[in-house]
Parts: sequence; C-alpha cells; structure tokens
Amino acid sequence: ALARLRRIAPDSETIYYVYITDADRRLLGYTTLRELVLARPDQNIMEVRRQPLISMPVSADQEEVARVIQKYDFLALPIVDAESRLVGIVTHDDVIDVLEEEATEDVQRMGAVEPLDIPYLRASFWQLAWRRGAWLSVLFVGELLTGTALRHYQGALEAVLSLIFFLPVIISAGGNSGSQSATLIIRSLAVGELRLSDWYRIAFREAGMGASLGLFLGAIGYARALMWGNGPLIAAAVALSLVAMVMIGSMVGAMLPLLLKLCRMDPGVASSPFVASLVDVVGIVVYFNISRIIVPVNGP
Amino acid sequence: ALARLRRIAPDSETIYYVYITDADRRLLGYTTLRELVLARPDQNIMEVRRQPLISMPVSADQEEVARVIQKYDFLALPIVDAESRLVGIVTHDDVIDVLEEEATEDVQRMGAVEPLDIPYLRASFWQLAWRRGAWLSVLFVGELLTGTALRHYQGALEAVLSLIFFLPVIISAGGNSGSQSATLIIRSLAVGELRLSDWYRIAFREAGMGASLGLFLGAIGYARALMWGNGPLIAAAVALSLVAMVMIGSMVGAMLPLLLKLCRMDPGVASSPFVASLVDVVGIVVYFNISRIIVPVNGP
Repeated sequence: ALARLRRIAPDSETIYYVYITDADRRLLGYTTLRELVLARPDQNIMEVRRQPLISMPVSADQEEVARVIQKYDFLALPIVDAESRLVGIVTHDDVIDVLEEEATEDVQRMGAVEPLDIPYLRASFWQLAWRRGAWLSVLFVGELLTGTALRHYQGALEAVLSLIFFLPVIISAGGNSGSQSATLIIRSLAVGELRLSDWYRIAFREAGMGASLGLFLGAIGYARALMWGNGPLIAAAVALSLVAMVMIGSMVGAMLPLLLKLCRMDPGVASSPFVASLVDVVGIVVYFNISRIIVPVNGP
Repeated sequence: ALARLRRIAPDSETIYYVYITDADRRLLGYTTLRELVLARPDQNIMEVRRQPLISMPVSADQEEVARVIQKYDFLALPIVDAESRLVGIVTHDDVIDVLEEEATEDVQRMGAVEPLDIPYLRASFWQLAWRRGAWLSVLFVGELLTGTALRHYQGALEAVLSLIFFLPVIISAGGNSGSQSATLIIRSLAVGELRLSDWYRIAFREAGMGASLGLFLGAIGYARALMWGNGPLIAAAVALSLVAMVMIGSMVGAMLPLLLKLCRMDPGVASSPFVASLVDVVGIVVYFNISRIIVPVNGP
C-alpha cells in the first residue's frame, strides 16, 4: 500500500484521504494517511478501510456538499455518479469559498440586489445597473400604491393635516422591525438553525416581540405628539398605530421568508427594502383607520 | 521520525501537518505527512522541513486567522506567543465556523439587529428584545426628525396637498437605492474585495449609477403623476426629486460604510434601515425645496 501511495502522492491534492476504487472506478471505500502510516507493510488496503463512507451524487447542489463537509469536519468528500463511480473530490478549501459565495448572495439579496457573482469594481456598469434596477423598479411600482392609499384618505388629511407629520415615522417603525425579523429568520434558515415546522414558535415569539417593542416606541411617540401640541386623541392614535405597525412588521418580516421557502423560493427575496415597501402601504391604511375611529373629524 | 509519529498520531487532530519545536516549545518549522511518508527512514526531521512557515500571534483576531487559512488553503495554522512558542493550532474546520459566524454577525447588523451569538429559538426573549430594541429606538428617534421637517413645510402642504401623495415613494426610492449601495460596499469590504483607497472609484461609479437609475424611476414617476391628474409642474418636481434622491441614496449608502471603516468602526452599522432613515429626512427637505422652486404656490 505504501509503495503505491509513494507513487501517487506528489500529484494528489487530497493526499490525506485515499479513496479505494475497483477496476471500473466504482468507489469501494476510503482510508486515511494516518491509517496507512500506522499500518503494517504487509496489510491489504481493504483491512485499513474506514467506515462509514459518505459520498454525494454529482447532481447535488454545491451548497449541500459544502454543508455536509462543514457538518462532519471532513477534509474532502467524494462525488459519485449514478453507478457510484468516483467522478471527483470536493476539498475543504472549496467549502470555504462556496459558503462565502453563498453568504455573499444571501447578503446581496437581502439588500435588494440580484446576486452579483463578480467583485463590485470588476462588474460592468450595465451588469450592476440591471441587478439593481430590476429590484428598484419592482419596489418603486409597489411603493406607488402608497400614493393611491394616501389619495383615498385625502378627506381625513384635509381635516387634520397634522396627521401627516407622524406618517413617515409610523411606517418606518413597521419597516424597521420587519427588516429585523426577516434578517433573523432568513439567516437562521440559511445556516440550518430553523425549519419550516418551527413556524408557530416563530409566529408566537414575533407577536410578543412586536407588541413589546411597539409599546415602547408607542410611549415615545405619544410623548412626542403631545410635545408638538397635538391633543391626547391624536397622540393616542399615533401610539396605537405604532404598536400595531411594529407587530405587523415583525409578523410580516418573520412569516414572509417562511412562506417563500414553503413555495420553494429563496427566503432571502424578503429583503429589508421589500418588507419595508410591503409594510408602508399597510401602515397608511392602519394609521388612517385608527385615526378615523379615535380622532373626531369634522371633514367629509 | 515515523516511529515517533506512530506514537503521537492517534491523539492528534491535525495529523496532516507536523509542527517541529525545540525543547522550549519554540516553533522551528513544519512538515507534512506526505513528506514523512515519502521520506527515507534514516532522514532527520529537519531535512524534510517545509518553507515558508506561516504562523499567527495569539493576539490576532479570529477572523484574521480564518482569512489567512482561507487565502492559502491551509489545513491548519500554528498560533505562537511573543517568544514564538507554539501555543495552539487553528484547523480548517474552525475556519468554516468562524467565517460563518462572522457572516451571521454581518447579516444581522445589516438588518439593524445587534449581533445575536445564539440561535434564534434558543435566545431568550429579553436577549432578543434588547438587541432589536436598541437599534429600533435609535432609528425611531432619528426618524422623528421627519415630523420636524414636515412641520416646517406645513405651508407648502396646505397650499398643494397633493404633494404629499408622492412623499413615501420618493423617500423610499432613496432608501432602497441606498440599501443596495450599502449592501454591495459592506460585503465587498468584508470579503476584502474593496479597500478604503478605492473610495473615489466607488463615488464616481455610484454617482453615475444613481443618476441612471434615478432617471429611469423619475420617468415612471412623471407618468404616474400626470395620470393622477397633476399638472406638468408637479410631475416635473416629482421626477426631479426622484433623480436627486436615488443619487443621494446611492452616495450615502456607498460612502457611509467607508466613513465608518475610516473611523475604525464596523461598516456594517450602515444597515438598510439606518441608511433609509437618514435618507428619509434628507428626502423631505429635497422634495419640498424642489417643489417650492418649480411649483407656483399661492400660500405663505
């Protein structure tokens, strides 16, 4: 065994693992340099064969292969075809690059950029413009609905113009808490800490979190509204809207990635800007309806 | 050499590299199992010593160590103290975990969550509430400035109420393009593709990108404003504001991470919600000033 290894060693990148195949290249097992060094010179290679042999099919996704190597701390993993013939070996250094690449894709998608597989400065202007412009346009067209919603509440606005002063802060609070939830859930799904079956625990937790954080922001908002000389009814409408929006933002941000995964889409599509845009339109409807109920309006 | 290796092999995690130290544990060099397997039994270990020996000091950051192992595709890297005594070995599987951990931190910070070093479902309610609430409050207090800005333009609003219908879409377009730029720059800095000295190339590129994308959104916005029955002057103010905001968003999103890095802070603090909040206030000022110049107002 050692004599043969001496012959193959200088060319082999994965010298630490030695894969054993038959004459048809079918993978029979593997052993390690350690075993070979410690073996007696007269032993047959099958006597130092290690169990179990883990391999992955050629059809596997590169991220799947990387996750297996990461999970088991392998130095390398053999790749086999449908007839279990050895067709290649993925090594530990490939794993680092693959996981880094996948993390970059996730990060970019979460910032609403279609993944750019080239370094920023090496990408051409049009490669970059396309990957940004596509998302920017989709979000823009969606966000135009805020105008439609605002036009719908024109009467309320004409009656109590000061309602508008709190609108950006209310919708952004919902968007921000939604970004936080989406980020936490998307990353946890990516590293395998969460599964779809955890959805009810996540929903329960996010509802409580949204309520608590919303109450806190609501209290600050209430005080600020009074300081700006608004009546307690407008202040109450602002506070209540904040509680509702932070709760809605948290729930949308947490559930949307799970829903995307359920539909076999990338959960990362639920980017911060995407969640924020979704929540913006909802926020206008929620805020004006809460105001309509609480604040007495003389207008139409 | 082989006899000694046989004795240490079963305990050693990093059997592929063999580190050579003197009696005081000072690191003299290293060799590999491959060298040992291929060596003649009568050779001294120093004859199969490999060059160059790369080691890192105990004071190095875990991410730095991981990046060196990643860059050179090492299986392991020796860690030495100030007297170059071997104090430990970082192996390839640690690197994957460290880089994954760092990516998670980056992702969470970019979603405006203080990094959570525990899986989502294992974190206690208060651990999570604190890490989210801190950022949410900072962003909320900052966003309250939008109310101050809007109150300042109360006269313009009373005169032309329909200006308000375009406000959310204009500020969100700035925030979204800012998120995209920040995401691209933060990730490129994290994986070492960009340096601070690239700032002028980034600024030049983002200005052009912002102008192009802004013109595109501005054209859609112009058409939509006309469709809503606004005059061409209001439509022009909307379009011009969109161009300005997408440019400002792109520049702020790209320059802020570089500025943070210059101040030796984490560039990732320039999260999507943070950039969006910053751009929201600027957006109100820009939009109302452009409108004031373009749209004839009979009010105060």
